[in-house]
Amino acid sequence: MDYRNIVLTLKYDGSAFHGWQTQPNGITVQQCMTEAARQITNDEVRITGCSRTDAGVHANMFVCTLKSQTRIPCDRLKGAFNAILPDSIAVTDCRDADIAFHPRYDCKKKTYKYMIWNGNEKNPFLVNRAYYYKYEIDEKLLNEQARDFIGTYDFSAFCACASTVDDKTRTVYGACVERQGDIVVFTFCGNGFLYNMVRIMTGTLLDIGSGRIPVNTIKDIILSKDRSRAGVTAPAHGLYLDRVEY
Amino acid sequence: MDYRNIVLTLKYDGSAFHGWQTQPNGITVQQCMTEAARQITNDEVRITGCSRTDAGVHANMFVCTLKSQTRIPCDRLKGAFNAILPDSIAVTDCRDADIAFHPRYDCKKKTYKYMIWNGNEKNPFLVNRAYYYKYEIDEKLLNEQARDFIGTYDFSAFCACASTVDDKTRTVYGACVERQGDIVVFTFCGNGFLYNMVRIMTGTLLDIGSGRIPVNTIKDIILSKDRSRAGVTAPAHGLYLDRVEY
Repeated sequence: MDYRNIVLTLKYDGSAFHGWQTQPNGITVQQCMTEAARQITNDEVRITGCSRTDAGVHANMFVCTLKSQTRIPCDRLKGAFNAILPDSIAVTDCRDADIAFHPRYDCKKKTYKYMIWNGNEKNPFLVNRAYYYKYEIDEKLLNEQARDFIGTYDFSAFCACASTVDDKTRTVYGACVERQGDIVVFTFCGNGFLYNMVRIMTGTLLDIGSGRIPVNTIKDIILSKDRSRAGVTAPAHGLYLDRVEY
Repeated sequence: MDYRNIVLTLKYDGSAFHGWQTQPNGITVQQCMTEAARQITNDEVRITGCSRTDAGVHANMFVCTLKSQTRIPCDRLKGAFNAILPDSIAVTDCRDADIAFHPRYDCKKKTYKYMIWNGNEKNPFLVNRAYYYKYEIDEKLLNEQARDFIGTYDFSAFCACASTVDDKTRTVYGACVERQGDIVVFTFCGNGFLYNMVRIMTGTLLDIGSGRIPVNTIKDIILSKDRSRAGVTAPAHGLYLDRVEY
């Protein structure tokens, strides 16, 4: 029987997971998805994700594919996944795709959001959901500075040293910083992002805000390709994969 | 040395607690507050709360008093509490009050909110934070029905049988149901609420929505003083003590 290539759209709270990708130590989202899929289809399935989110990173939208010979219709599959998966993972959409569709290689655009709680006190309802930054953020300044990330560049300066990717050229389509009350949201949209790139871009903007990095230097830092000139890597738990487009 | 009566305003995520009141089994908010206060003041303190929230119930605003001989000024006390307390409890305000002030007896008005996630699928970010009710809620109908709770009545029909309170007369000042996207919020405001009263009022409205209880019967149910005529007790994890006024 032919294989189907089923596209599943997920939403997950990454707090309890060691990221997306299956690994020997710690429970991952991919592992939960694979185990649920095997239980539902009784088939040796393969689950492929659109991104390798780190431990603690969340997803408002994450796309993965399920290769399986199952005949179960999509609407029933969706219900079965939502019944079996832990409450921290939801399947929001399920549909058949062309067998050649690949959730990572075919992705045209990804949007990440980084959430910062910038209130006077810690917020018990945002533990693990937003980074608590207690110094007042000047969102107007950071929004202006963020524009310098827009464009096509070699973003080596904004890539974790551990990365083994060869071509570090990426296109950033949009970058902005907005305040919604005590929450400051950093939004980055691009054709793809390097390892830790969004967290380093966020950390660099925060360092500009605090004065540790001078204003109007982002273009210079990009062109230097020198990781040591960019800012800190903001913690994982403020990061959300927000949208993937094909 | 004289005792001080220090008023602490809290915000807490009740998911991990067995409610407010200290008890032999399970960690409570009162116990965390007492232990933190003893550590900070090095004094045999007494913590008194404005309400006895149940296990799993949250507070956007909760008021308690700390009786202590400490000389530490309020702003430093607040910082010390926020440093020592678990991330799930925040102290948002700290000030001295008259020694006679009592957070429960002097309370004039309490507002509770009950949060329902009424989307098509479960929401991973609202686990333990809102009750997932999968049948579509007609918020306009329930908002009309909720008005019948307003007034001064013996609310025995809306009180958990375990309650030992003698006088079950309470005044409800406001009751409304509003939709904010996929979230439906039930708001109840009154001079006080009986044990489980807000959760039973919410459950009764949901039962009216589903047809298990006929429309326009809330006044009859109140007057019957018969708990068996009211609806189910909605789960604790959707409930928030939202505001207390003096």
